[in-house]
Amino acid sequence: MKFSVSKNDLQNAISTVIKAVPVKSNLTNADCILVDAKDDEIRLVANNSEMAIECICTGRVLEEGSVCLESKMFQELIRKLPDDLIEVECDKNYLTTVHYKDNKYDLIGKETDTFNDIPVFDYKEHLDIFEFSLKEIIRQTIFSISDNEANKTLRGELFEIKDGILRVVSLDGQRVSIRRIEIEDKSLNKKIIVPGKSLNDLFNILGKESNGMATMHFTDNHLIVTFESTTFVTRLIDGEFFNIDNVLSKEYSTKITINKKELYDCVDRSTIFAREGDKKAIVLSIGENIIEMYMNSSKGSMREKIEIEKSGNDLKIGFNPKYLTDALRAIDDETIHLYLSTPKSPLFIRDDADSFTYMILPVNLGVEGDR
Amino acid sequence: MKFSVSKNDLQNAISTVIKAVPVKSNLTNADCILVDAKDDEIRLVANNSEMAIECICTGRVLEEGSVCLESKMFQELIRKLPDDLIEVECDKNYLTTVHYKDNKYDLIGKETDTFNDIPVFDYKEHLDIFEFSLKEIIRQTIFSISDNEANKTLRGELFEIKDGILRVVSLDGQRVSIRRIEIEDKSLNKKIIVPGKSLNDLFNILGKESNGMATMHFTDNHLIVTFESTTFVTRLIDGEFFNIDNVLSKEYSTKITINKKELYDCVDRSTIFAREGDKKAIVLSIGENIIEMYMNSSKGSMREKIEIEKSGNDLKIGFNPKYLTDALRAIDDETIHLYLSTPKSPLFIRDDADSFTYMILPVNLGVEGDR
Repeated sequence: MKFSVSKNDLQNAISTVIKAVPVKSNLTNADCILVDAKDDEIRLVANNSEMAIECICTGRVLEEGSVCLESKMFQELIRKLPDDLIEVECDKNYLTTVHYKDNKYDLIGKETDTFNDIPVFDYKEHLDIFEFSLKEIIRQTIFSISDNEANKTLRGELFEIKDGILRVVSLDGQRVSIRRIEIEDKSLNKKIIVPGKSLNDLFNILGKESNGMATMHFTDNHLIVTFESTTFVTRLIDGEFFNIDNVLSKEYSTKITINKKELYDCVDRSTIFAREGDKKAIVLSIGENIIEMYMNSSKGSMREKIEIEKSGNDLKIGFNPKYLTDALRAIDDETIHLYLSTPKSPLFIRDDADSFTYMILPVNLGVEGDR
Repeated sequence: MKFSVSKNDLQNAISTVIKAVPVKSNLTNADCILVDAKDDEIRLVANNSEMAIECICTGRVLEEGSVCLESKMFQELIRKLPDDLIEVECDKNYLTTVHYKDNKYDLIGKETDTFNDIPVFDYKEHLDIFEFSLKEIIRQTIFSISDNEANKTLRGELFEIKDGILRVVSLDGQRVSIRRIEIEDKSLNKKIIVPGKSLNDLFNILGKESNGMATMHFTDNHLIVTFESTTFVTRLIDGEFFNIDNVLSKEYSTKITINKKELYDCVDRSTIFAREGDKKAIVLSIGENIIEMYMNSSKGSMREKIEIEKSGNDLKIGFNPKYLTDALRAIDDETIHLYLSTPKSPLFIRDDADSFTYMILPVNLGVEGDR
């Protein structure tokens, strides 16, 4: 194997695929990145069996071949090289030499026969989506994935495609997060559960530019996302996702319109009293055109007021402040609507276009609500 | 106590003094910051008995008084407040209320009688120095402080003032770092050992602007540094510092002039083979106008060449690459001189003005040097 490639391209490809290198494994090649040169393409692959990432660099391939290189050492070396063309050469014993100018680095490589390459599928159904949109809908829902080991489906997100809508849902025992976007293909019908960990890695490798396109491909057991020169494959979680339609109600008796930043800042400040373990609720006391928020703890107390528009009943209700800040941080709108019913029924934050819904269960205030 | 102050000023003062709040302590008030309002000055103090920091904010004091506030909660609250004037008020039970607009935060404060306030000294001798210079000489020497618990003097840096020169020295068993700067006062004569941990904190609170002045005051057991509105006090380490003058030789048989960045980048790349525990040496093979550097390890090997100017003998010598990169990172010069004698005698890196000297002991190469 012998090829030349731009240091920057190679560095970017390594930092993309390295997210799929397993943290621990007994397999010989598992902590490696596969480097496979053919047809003026240098293909890099990492695979942790839950998830695989492939990234292709364009270069000049002088001799086809492949090698497995220890991922961290390979990344460190390429990162530390000057920004220039570099040449990579591998002999039949997998000794891999990285040349630049008169200097050379020999890395002891490994054979590629036993490397778990990225799986190849017959793609059938697919969905085109802006890279940026996919990145955003992950960010706006991933925080409420459950960390409960016992329920594996809740450790993933539901991606549901029906009637020209992609709906992404995550939930734990206390809250539900939903993002909905319209898609062009009205006939596509899919329902898959994607592991949260994979989505987190996908989020990190998706580009920040708003004009790149990604394609989601579906098989029975895998989601494949292709974008730019990258292919991302993850296994799906098998099982039936919680049927959230039963808990989503559009009925309410109180509707508030409020400045999102003011609400976020206030709830965020209240968290100074809500240290670990000390699960203090912030109380929202909703009156005519004003919401008063307060919290009492062993370390002190707070009380703030924010002007609102309100329709419906007055209400006093308590929430875990972290659940509120998580949802509010995910929303980009300047002004938001809160829908409430009773002190024991959930809060819904949703926009008029129904592009997002955040449901949060209240905390039972007991005596505290009366202060 | 009652005062008003700019949120930003208060936030900056808290983040300065909080470095002296002890991590763990049994004293009631130890995890607190003292807030003391008097004469339109709000004085903040933290003290961990090794080191104390005081910072003064200008504000409007409506009622004199003082309170101790739990440092992290106080910092978090002020940080999260909007950038505005805030009012702080404390009642006779030390319940402290932070007001802004119509909103209020009550923090449960503590009494101040048992708080270990910053000590007050009769300053006698002092040295004026640019804040920036003090920050730089700490950065350029602190990395070679010994972490050997057994020798307490080496866990600090020597600050030696004599004949119009401030010389700062740190050393561990393998290397010595020295910075020298000229000072105006030719009569001052001082020799103190300042704890490395205190210097690290001082480094972090010194301003980055180049035109601020700091004053170092000396007592028998303390160094006091005042700058802007901050007073920093640290205990000194008692004892006799290692006499480095015996090991500093200006004799050499090989002198190299080399581009610092090229040398740094090369040695830094070699560290990819020098993982933890695996104490590999980088070999410097010095020939006529060229230096060849190489390293062999179980993971691979490297070989690089850099053009140099050389006078004197050829030489082959090995070093721990980390010791080289630490010293090279501290040097700002573009071109540097290396002075060497034999494969077993130390390397000296020093400038013509004698403003810095880095001495590094070589590694015994044994067979490796012959490859």
